[in-house]
Amino acid sequence: METEKKQTREIETPTNITIKGILGLIMENIEASEGGDSKKVISLGMGDPTAYSCFHSPALAQQAVSDTLSSYKFNGYSPTVGLPQTRKAIADYLSRDLPEKVSADDVYVTAGCTQAIETALSILAYPGANILLPRPGFPIYALCAAFRHLEVRYYDLLPEKGWEVDLNAVESLADQNTIAVVIINPGNPCGNVYSYQHLKEIAETANKLKLIVIADEVYGHLAFGTNPFVPMGVFGSIAPVLTLGSLSKRWLVPGWRLGWLVINDPNGTIKTPKFVERIKKYCDICGGPATFIQAAVPRIIQQTEEVFFKKTINMLKGTSDICCEKIKEIPCLTCTHKPQGSMAVMVKLNLSLLRDISDDIDFCFKLAKEESVIILPGLAVGLKNWLRITFAAEPSSLEEALGRVKSFCQRHSYQENGHC
Amino acid sequence: METEKKQTREIETPTNITIKGILGLIMENIEASEGGDSKKVISLGMGDPTAYSCFHSPALAQQAVSDTLSSYKFNGYSPTVGLPQTRKAIADYLSRDLPEKVSADDVYVTAGCTQAIETALSILAYPGANILLPRPGFPIYALCAAFRHLEVRYYDLLPEKGWEVDLNAVESLADQNTIAVVIINPGNPCGNVYSYQHLKEIAETANKLKLIVIADEVYGHLAFGTNPFVPMGVFGSIAPVLTLGSLSKRWLVPGWRLGWLVINDPNGTIKTPKFVERIKKYCDICGGPATFIQAAVPRIIQQTEEVFFKKTINMLKGTSDICCEKIKEIPCLTCTHKPQGSMAVMVKLNLSLLRDISDDIDFCFKLAKEESVIILPGLAVGLKNWLRITFAAEPSSLEEALGRVKSFCQRHSYQENGHC
Repeated sequence: METEKKQTREIETPTNITIKGILGLIMENIEASEGGDSKKVISLGMGDPTAYSCFHSPALAQQAVSDTLSSYKFNGYSPTVGLPQTRKAIADYLSRDLPEKVSADDVYVTAGCTQAIETALSILAYPGANILLPRPGFPIYALCAAFRHLEVRYYDLLPEKGWEVDLNAVESLADQNTIAVVIINPGNPCGNVYSYQHLKEIAETANKLKLIVIADEVYGHLAFGTNPFVPMGVFGSIAPVLTLGSLSKRWLVPGWRLGWLVINDPNGTIKTPKFVERIKKYCDICGGPATFIQAAVPRIIQQTEEVFFKKTINMLKGTSDICCEKIKEIPCLTCTHKPQGSMAVMVKLNLSLLRDISDDIDFCFKLAKEESVIILPGLAVGLKNWLRITFAAEPSSLEEALGRVKSFCQRHSYQENGHC
Repeated sequence: METEKKQTREIETPTNITIKGILGLIMENIEASEGGDSKKVISLGMGDPTAYSCFHSPALAQQAVSDTLSSYKFNGYSPTVGLPQTRKAIADYLSRDLPEKVSADDVYVTAGCTQAIETALSILAYPGANILLPRPGFPIYALCAAFRHLEVRYYDLLPEKGWEVDLNAVESLADQNTIAVVIINPGNPCGNVYSYQHLKEIAETANKLKLIVIADEVYGHLAFGTNPFVPMGVFGSIAPVLTLGSLSKRWLVPGWRLGWLVINDPNGTIKTPKFVERIKKYCDICGGPATFIQAAVPRIIQQTEEVFFKKTINMLKGTSDICCEKIKEIPCLTCTHKPQGSMAVMVKLNLSLLRDISDDIDFCFKLAKEESVIILPGLAVGLKNWLRITFAAEPSSLEEALGRVKSFCQRHSYQENGHC
């Protein structure tokens, strides 16, 4: 059988870097170099804290899913848009913080926030369309856009302004084929939390440019600094908002794949019958989350106690403080903006202080090989010669890991006396 | 805010009928007409038997998922292609029936068979490509193709030949831009099971035309007639096969969303590094099934007892017999081919015997309104003036429902004396 025809099909595969792809390569580098007395691997690479017992999901949530499973009532298909009670519970949850409530019909239940991203981009894409993404950002957006033949235009987040959106850039990048601007708040990878005022300015800019705002709030409510978390949906009457979220981060269950896409559009700007029909049909081809997990959502949302959320926030505040303190001890790394939310922070790498490190990729590969510590190179999120450090880890592991980073930097500095 | 720009985006939404869409409309028709003394609604519309206690999932499977959930070990992300142990368990399971084994690396774990379909079509699609689908068939394929701008060409299944593939039609429809031919075996909606010889002919035709075979085996092993179930992967060395499957039907857990896409390509015709890279990247944007459900798969596959599978097969054989017997009593309905597998059968509607029924849609709407019985109009699966009847129901419910269908047909026949 000749393969000529098939091979022509393969040329379109996106060449994007993915976080999991690059972390996998870095991990292989450790495994290849492991000897008999190698150190325990510590990963500060992924936004998945569930490996640490201090970041366990609430027992109530576990029990709720266990109960819906053992009831035998939820082994069948759910409506592809989600169970009605699940949609309503999510609508009620989000509406607590909104001036104009969303209804169950505005909620589409997805297999994690990843599928919410995929759905949002796919339903909006058309030939010739483009989308505005933050840089640094979350690479799934660009990968998804590439598969949907959606042109990507990057606007910068401004480190000197606490990673705020460069609204001038947004204005100059947008044209009549720009479908949406994506914001991630609380920020991944930067750990920033936008102020009410800045979010309002984003909405006003979107309104001026006739853009939809895709608000990735997968880290919603995980804010522990001066700015409280404000959902973008608050400004849905200024510009239509598609809110993406999930149980993953706040309830510490990323593996449960329970996310949502919610239309915040009180003026009905985009929520036409045709648009709703399009989302519904798209949900029909999506797969979606397990029915019994969906069925547990009302109880999980309604009954998780505030003390659980506070514990997580305090833990993240504590580990982010440890992270910043430890980084201050490392001259070639600078934390330009103390994290106020999410589970990660961007740290600037000063290569001029290092003897034999060519860039962030080289830094992370050598660090992994020598110290068995995994950190994400900034290039993976669009910012060369920065690093993304996840601080959602056990405090002792985090201290140990950053101690090793310090040793590594000392070893590779011009002066080996410890002042790199 | 002007909406002109946004409305131009909406024109491309596929207009396809979906099974859930039309069943929803039929159900609304019952609800709108419900009075005080309405009959209990019985649905023979969906392929979801879990509403009936005789089609409960095995206790072992429930326990396996409960255990992985309560371990707290699987609340985190899995690799997007699936957990290694899950991929291996599925590879071993499928390899039992294959002359050339598939490996864990050939398996991609998906959110149900729906996401396996979506993934298969998306990774193969390119501008100008087309795909061959069976008629009657499963409408998700056409909907998915429409979203991926993949042209659909239908080949007929031949009722007079036990719903075999019209291979002459396949040959005349295929051209240099045809990427694949889809077969569904055991058949949905027809309830047929292809012979070894026919499957081999399909593979040979695909080889001749340089097509990939997409083999939808979501009803794999649910065969209870003369032909045993033979997986298409057996012929993977004749033509490359993408096998799609899931736990949904054989383990009676469609709501768990645990499916797979498997490459059966011992000659490496399509399984190039580029192709594998493309699938992996596609998995990165997919969402996928819950990690703890994936983690339970090895135990579920290895430990489910044969007696459970036999019970299901016997139950389906029994209910399919009831279905055929009852349909024989209804002159305007003909079961042209006794079902040998899956959970549904296509039944021909003879409108010339009915007084005031214009077509299959009219039949199903009036039946629902008058008798509270839900049946899928054949048009939803591509065959006008046929009906798809799901026989995966409690025997007493099935008898009751088909008794009501009989009354309905008598009432609407030209002679009201019972001989329609």
